[in-house]
Amino acid sequence: DDMDLMADPGPDFTPYDAVLPPLKPLSGGEVRKSTITIEESTKEVAPGVEQKVWTFGGTMPGPVLHGQVGDTFEVTLVNHGTEAHGIDFHAGSLAPDTVMKPIPPGGSVVYRFTAERAGIWMYHCSSMPMSVHIANGMFGAVVIEPPDLPKVDRSYVVVQSEQYFGPQGGSADPDKVMAGVPDTVDFNGYPRQYDHFPLPAKVGERVRVWVLDAGPSRGTAFHVVGTQFDTVYSEGAYLLGGGGDSGATGSGGSQALGLMPAQGGFVEMTFPEPGHYPFVSHVMTDAERGAHGLFEVTN
Amino acid sequence: DDMDLMADPGPDFTPYDAVLPPLKPLSGGEVRKSTITIEESTKEVAPGVEQKVWTFGGTMPGPVLHGQVGDTFEVTLVNHGTEAHGIDFHAGSLAPDTVMKPIPPGGSVVYRFTAERAGIWMYHCSSMPMSVHIANGMFGAVVIEPPDLPKVDRSYVVVQSEQYFGPQGGSADPDKVMAGVPDTVDFNGYPRQYDHFPLPAKVGERVRVWVLDAGPSRGTAFHVVGTQFDTVYSEGAYLLGGGGDSGATGSGGSQALGLMPAQGGFVEMTFPEPGHYPFVSHVMTDAERGAHGLFEVTN
Amino acid sequence: DDMDLMADPGPDFTPYDAVLPPLKPLSGGEVRKSTITIEESTKEVAPGVEQKVWTFGGTMPGPVLHGQVGDTFEVTLVNHGTEAHGIDFHAGSLAPDTVMKPIPPGGSVVYRFTAERAGIWMYHCSSMPMSVHIANGMFGAVVIEPPDLPKVDRSYVVVQSEQYFGPQGGSADPDKVMAGVPDTVDFNGYPRQYDHFPLPAKVGERVRVWVLDAGPSRGTAFHVVGTQFDTVYSEGAYLLGGGGDSGATGSGGSQALGLMPAQGGFVEMTFPEPGHYPFVSHVMTDAERGAHGLFEVTN
Ligand SMILES: [Cu+2]
Ligand SMILES: [Cu+2]
Ligand SMILES: [Cu+2]
Ligand SMILES: [Cu+2]
Ligand SMILES: [Cu+2]
Ligand SMILES: [Cu+2]
Ligand code: NA
Ligand code: NA
Ligand code: NA
Ligand code: NA
Ligand code: NA
Ligand code: NA
Ligand SMILES: [Zn+2]
Ligand SMILES: [Zn+2]
Ligand SMILES: [Zn+2]
Ligand SMILES: [Zn+2]
Ligand SMILES: [Zn+2]
Ligand SMILES: [Zn+2]
Ligand SMILES: [Zn+2]
Ligand SMILES: [Zn+2]
Ligand SMILES: [Zn+2]
Repeated sequence: DDMDLMADPGPDFTPYDAVLPPLKPLSGGEVRKSTITIEESTKEVAPGVEQKVWTFGGTMPGPVLHGQVGDTFEVTLVNHGTEAHGIDFHAGSLAPDTVMKPIPPGGSVVYRFTAERAGIWMYHCSSMPMSVHIANGMFGAVVIEPPDLPKVDRSYVVVQSEQYFGPQGGSADPDKVMAGVPDTVDFNGYPRQYDHFPLPAKVGERVRVWVLDAGPSRGTAFHVVGTQFDTVYSEGAYLLGGGGDSGATGSGGSQALGLMPAQGGFVEMTFPEPGHYPFVSHVMTDAERGAHGLFEVTN
Repeated sequence: DDMDLMADPGPDFTPYDAVLPPLKPLSGGEVRKSTITIEESTKEVAPGVEQKVWTFGGTMPGPVLHGQVGDTFEVTLVNHGTEAHGIDFHAGSLAPDTVMKPIPPGGSVVYRFTAERAGIWMYHCSSMPMSVHIANGMFGAVVIEPPDLPKVDRSYVVVQSEQYFGPQGGSADPDKVMAGVPDTVDFNGYPRQYDHFPLPAKVGERVRVWVLDAGPSRGTAFHVVGTQFDTVYSEGAYLLGGGGDSGATGSGGSQALGLMPAQGGFVEMTFPEPGHYPFVSHVMTDAERGAHGLFEVTN
Repeated sequence: DDMDLMADPGPDFTPYDAVLPPLKPLSGGEVRKSTITIEESTKEVAPGVEQKVWTFGGTMPGPVLHGQVGDTFEVTLVNHGTEAHGIDFHAGSLAPDTVMKPIPPGGSVVYRFTAERAGIWMYHCSSMPMSVHIANGMFGAVVIEPPDLPKVDRSYVVVQSEQYFGPQGGSADPDKVMAGVPDTVDFNGYPRQYDHFPLPAKVGERVRVWVLDAGPSRGTAFHVVGTQFDTVYSEGAYLLGGGGDSGATGSGGSQALGLMPAQGGFVEMTFPEPGHYPFVSHVMTDAERGAHGLFEVTN
């Protein structure tokens, strides 16, 4: 085992960009078009560990798609890999029989869907066994904003997932995947990356973090050390805050957003003073497997 | 190991009926009476696997009891087995000291309760170790409709549970149960049964699925591929949809209902076009252990 | 293995007091001051099992701190142990950089925070690896009442946690902690203690149970056999009951409160008749590992 989770990432490592930029609204009739190429490539997936991962667009997770309720997305999926892969977007509604079908190496498909409902929706490879395709890198998020989403000072996206390493240079180990005890638990595909590249925020800013649990198998208890959530939105509805219609009495706060695999939501918080505020899965052994990052908060 | 989860069930296999028929209301003073016999019998519990299961009424799960808030149920439980078994209905409130007590082989008990609150409530054997009695087949659901439950086009009941096989022809292995890594994860007691016997629906129909997680140990993230939930009710309250009083802003949707063991609820959805829409636990390894079925949607 | 979970605790065993006394409100300007000493001491942690545990204040969980929204707490933490320990109070908001830092043996820190939001908040040791410090006893709860919390007849606090035993007389086994299959799952730090020392209640009384899942790793499905929850508050908001603003239609009930590690809430119930009503985690294998107690209900 060459992995030391506390070691620095290698010199070529670049963190996954967790920033969710403000949404540019569509003008009438426009469609959000993108191309995602499926890649099989060897990457550093933890300090000292290289795996041949399968990705959407070269990163793990794949690109964040971002829109609002009513937007249509047109994704051209191209398979540059050596085996069949496909895609399933939870953000859209359509019969799985056609566009979700795995496409052969060299093939492509155009997957068009309209986002009818708000939330942070998982996408993932549709090839069997899906648990292994997800564990080997094939997952991502689509953020669909509700029309009345309040503006905040900063928005981030954090996707939790698990890795079950094969041999150095190999791919995810299917037996480990089934046994369900991962080697790492990651935020945005690499253990502890935001300890090395902290996410910035300023004192007093309202920060929204969209969180998706991609699994394949473990839930999360997303927590930020040193602050509390005053607003929690999960699976399309507010659990706390967000106006007059939720179960909050106005006085409560939340310390952890609980998500099962394929669930998502967002939390909002402010930071009371400068400092380093860890964010973790409070499934504490998973935090120690890598589900740990830092907000660096300055004046 | 004789199990191939992708194989067909044997020729004698009949699926558990997932349909929840419309409720016939009681007239004044009537009581919902039933008799449930506890049976120990050898059954095919997965392709190629026979186990001596313990059941309520010969099926696994046992029969769905169905009523509305205020109804009284009178269940005569008869033990045809060779060891002590009992029953615990979460749907009713009463001191566990008497009617929940395990009854000896050949014995019987009359268990009477009034359903004071709506929800989908677990029942299960009350003999120790309960984890093994549940894993070996002794669980089921009571659906209590709220008085104002909207009519839908179709209602199904799906109960998730785990199996931990003993030797061929044997019963659940207590050590495997404690280790918590199941051989199969089932919807209504048999892995992937509704892949072979899909549940029908029509395009545009409103479909309600009542979901109960019977465990004994694993939660579920109930998801339907290709559609989204616009209404989610969990543990007696709406999380999404269902009128003006929940946390929804009206724009959100849900991709997965998360349940811990002994939790239940329902989800509602429509299907946009004909096709085959899988339903799974998005704990993806559990889907691959059998928590997978199909809706067959036609015009 | 000397453990027999069904055996009686030793003669020196005293149960953790689960009673939450009525809150004494502060008068203007007052602060809730306390001193918590960190102790390393050998204790009976299950029938026949002694471990060298690390505790806040000599008990496992540590003392329950109790206040209401707006109260300021000033905790002097003194380390009587032989290694570095610290504390992280989820109940307050402050930069983790200073007061959460582990303090050396013989050291102390004054940790001051104002409780801005209601809920039951975890505290725990802040030394690495936190999973082991929590598993070895370093956790507890802060209950912050919302200003409009209705009076009830009785209030209890139940904290679920896991133990992973080292050798007799030793401390928590880090490898077992990472593997995630505990030796015991406890309510208030000792398996089945309230089977031996049941919690009293009277027929018809409204009983509130504050529940916190301290982990380090497993969720709970808190259930009371023989009754139902008509009110559920989780992570700062009502899921059921609690006035007009939650998702309840008024007719629903709940059979289990699902919590991930570091989540908490409360449930309310009444008991319909005298008897013994078990409370459990309905993750049934965890109930059998010790997450089991009794309410003794009398007229
Ligand atoms: Cu793939
Ligand atoms: Cu914490
Ligand atoms: Cu039984
Ligand atoms: Cu999916
Ligand atoms: Cu410590
Ligand atoms: Cu039960
Ligand atoms: Na970044
Ligand atoms: Na915190
Ligand atoms: Na059927
Ligand atoms: Na879907
Ligand atoms: Na006590
Ligand atoms: Na009950
Ligand atoms: Zn390429
Ligand atoms: Zn997939
Ligand atoms: Zn810094
Ligand atoms: Zn019979
Ligand atoms: Zn039972
Ligand atoms: Zn068909
Ligand atoms: Zn001391
Ligand atoms: Zn700690
Ligand atoms: Zn008694």
